[in-house]
Amino acid sequence: MEVHVLDTLREVFALHGFGEIETRSVEPVERLAGDSEASKEIYTLGRLAEEERKEAKLGLHFDLTVPFARYVEENQGRLQFPFRRYQIQKVWRGERPQEGRFREFYQADIDVVGRDQLPEHLEAEVAIVMARALAALPLPPARMHLNNRALVEGFYRGVGIEDVAGALRSVDKLDKIGAGGVRDELHAKGVSAGAADAILELAAIQTPDGSFLDLVEALWDHSPVVEGADDARAEFDRGARSLAALVDAVNAAVPETAVADLRIARGLDYYTGAVYETVLDGHEDLGSICSGGRYDSLVAGGGFPGVGLSIGVSRLISRMLGAGLVSASRAVPSAVLVAVTDERHRGVSTAIADRLRARGIACEVSPNAAKFGKQIQYADRRGIPFVWFPATESAELADGEVKDIRSGDQVPADADSWAPPAEDLKPRIVRG
Amino acid sequence: MEVHVLDTLREVFALHGFGEIETRSVEPVERLAGDSEASKEIYTLGRLAEEERKEAKLGLHFDLTVPFARYVEENQGRLQFPFRRYQIQKVWRGERPQEGRFREFYQADIDVVGRDQLPEHLEAEVAIVMARALAALPLPPARMHLNNRALVEGFYRGVGIEDVAGALRSVDKLDKIGAGGVRDELHAKGVSAGAADAILELAAIQTPDGSFLDLVEALWDHSPVVEGADDARAEFDRGARSLAALVDAVNAAVPETAVADLRIARGLDYYTGAVYETVLDGHEDLGSICSGGRYDSLVAGGGFPGVGLSIGVSRLISRMLGAGLVSASRAVPSAVLVAVTDERHRGVSTAIADRLRARGIACEVSPNAAKFGKQIQYADRRGIPFVWFPATESAELADGEVKDIRSGDQVPADADSWAPPAEDLKPRIVRG
Repeated sequence: MEVHVLDTLREVFALHGFGEIETRSVEPVERLAGDSEASKEIYTLGRLAEEERKEAKLGLHFDLTVPFARYVEENQGRLQFPFRRYQIQKVWRGERPQEGRFREFYQADIDVVGRDQLPEHLEAEVAIVMARALAALPLPPARMHLNNRALVEGFYRGVGIEDVAGALRSVDKLDKIGAGGVRDELHAKGVSAGAADAILELAAIQTPDGSFLDLVEALWDHSPVVEGADDARAEFDRGARSLAALVDAVNAAVPETAVADLRIARGLDYYTGAVYETVLDGHEDLGSICSGGRYDSLVAGGGFPGVGLSIGVSRLISRMLGAGLVSASRAVPSAVLVAVTDERHRGVSTAIADRLRARGIACEVSPNAAKFGKQIQYADRRGIPFVWFPATESAELADGEVKDIRSGDQVPADADSWAPPAEDLKPRIVRG
Repeated sequence: MEVHVLDTLREVFALHGFGEIETRSVEPVERLAGDSEASKEIYTLGRLAEEERKEAKLGLHFDLTVPFARYVEENQGRLQFPFRRYQIQKVWRGERPQEGRFREFYQADIDVVGRDQLPEHLEAEVAIVMARALAALPLPPARMHLNNRALVEGFYRGVGIEDVAGALRSVDKLDKIGAGGVRDELHAKGVSAGAADAILELAAIQTPDGSFLDLVEALWDHSPVVEGADDARAEFDRGARSLAALVDAVNAAVPETAVADLRIARGLDYYTGAVYETVLDGHEDLGSICSGGRYDSLVAGGGFPGVGLSIGVSRLISRMLGAGLVSASRAVPSAVLVAVTDERHRGVSTAIADRLRARGIACEVSPNAAKFGKQIQYADRRGIPFVWFPATESAELADGEVKDIRSGDQVPADADSWAPPAEDLKPRIVRG
């Protein structure tokens, strides 16, 4: 199941010109441990043989951003920018396993990283690629909630908030502690009641198109804007225009996908432009399944602005399976079990299997020459839809009969031309 | 590059009815550390946060057999036997990195495991599947060196060797210490000079077909066979017949692949029937790239006989690249860069790209509207073979011209019908 999902993502990413890279699982701990919150979750590596413990401390990556940053830093001389890559790998987190929280899980990341500058239209492109990737999976509709950090920060500064990051952190808790809780936190941080009201009003704005523009402008006009906020207003305007263009571009490419949602904050210091969260219709409790944003530089030294999105694939699949949204059409690749009449004729069955394989039909030969009823039962238990009975008495090796064990229909067939219906050729992800 | 190789392997395995499973990277150390030799190489996991170190000790798997055994043990109630699976995952070994020896690398394993019994013809099937998988890669011809443990052990017992495992361990060093060294070791282990000569003569036998049968029978007849070796002779005969059938079956399916090589020992206690090693023509120094054998039980409690083979994929690819055997036809998935005439017309270029993608053609839109010469240079540097120039003045959106930047040829084209030559559609592994 996971494999089908990953293959689908790969295909969509590649169609849009994203190349796959894979980085090693292990990085020096100093590099991983930059962020104090995540560092508690890092698995460190030791050696079982005690005497070998002296080497530099290593840890398993807990996301794909840290190793990607190292990759770009190390390979900057030979990469062409803007560099677009996808990366689908396991990440490890030492948290307590619970529903939807694994010790190891797959993430799928796409990023485009520039050298010194990065055109804004790429903020729309990565969102469109991810929206298409999600649409290619048998999922309920995904809604991308978009915001822009310049808009938000310009507004916050406009109403006189100095600790913008601190205020963002509080607003980010809206779902958990409600508007009252956020207001209390803001008050404790020295934000005036008027400013707190204004930024909570801002966070309440959500529109399926560019119509938020009028709302946020009206809000600015009615808010306790401080004197000399011209810079803040310019930043706010720039962010607002950018967000409107982003929402329109995404909806033009993948209709009814994007909404402007002024509440989206996405952490703090990292993002500087577009920020993205994605929820599945009817599965809002799962939280965001695909998040990211635009950042000023991928690497610590600066100079590599980028934009990227990440899907928590294992968590998504776990929910898809758990909620009965999807299942695999069968557990095994084989479309056909070639029966064996008796062990003397095993070679006939093997030759037929090879003829089917030559035309891309996955099959296997019965492990034994039990009664046909038993061989059919074996196929049925494994979920193989067809059983081939070789005509061992015929002069034509390819002659035989093939039974669809779901319908019971059995028809004469030629191993050089017969094929299963297209939907039975390979296991598929099916809804329900 | 690695991705293409893994996809090729997956395709061949699935065509033969092997389903993919994936197990977690982390296992309890007690389970991993069974074998004392490998346990020195196990990476153990800790937590960066000191206070959380009390949990059960975990380690990263160093092969795919240990986690597969756990998987079969845990899922035995719901698996259908014989159970055939492939597994392509990273494994980790804490050895010093050196050429061809990674801290982490991919292995690709196939196994068929029975419940209580496993038909012998599966020993040929797994070898054939692996031979086909290797043949599907752009490699020099691969030779499978096959032996049979019953043949060898019957012979050793026939000439009066009691510590069969010890003698096998010595013969396994033939390449390293030569016949003289092996003879010395055998002498030290109490093996008679006559018996030592006999088993070295046995190890020297290598034939591309079943003709070794006459040679080993003649050798038995001329060797210092001890009295009452009837059981040993029966075991020897059984193994010899089985090996001859195996070599014939593999060569019938994949001509000129298998040789009977009576020197192959493959470790010790584990294998009980067929054993396999594989070398690449001209790259014998790389050692065996695909090895395995038949075993009496996958799990400690017994009852799950199986047969399997494993490819050291990363090591193989590293050699393929290092020796200049192969390269990728291009580094990026895009077959086409759609040029942008000016930023006002970016939407035209995006629409053309989507039309190409709808027909499976990977492409990307130029990140900027620089002069066409610069955009062509950008495509060239990234290895994208074609550049599309939209006819922004035409009424027909799909109209344009496409340039093959290798030949310089530029022709009018329609985005709804033009396609690159098949060999340019996707990046390929090419020889040299």
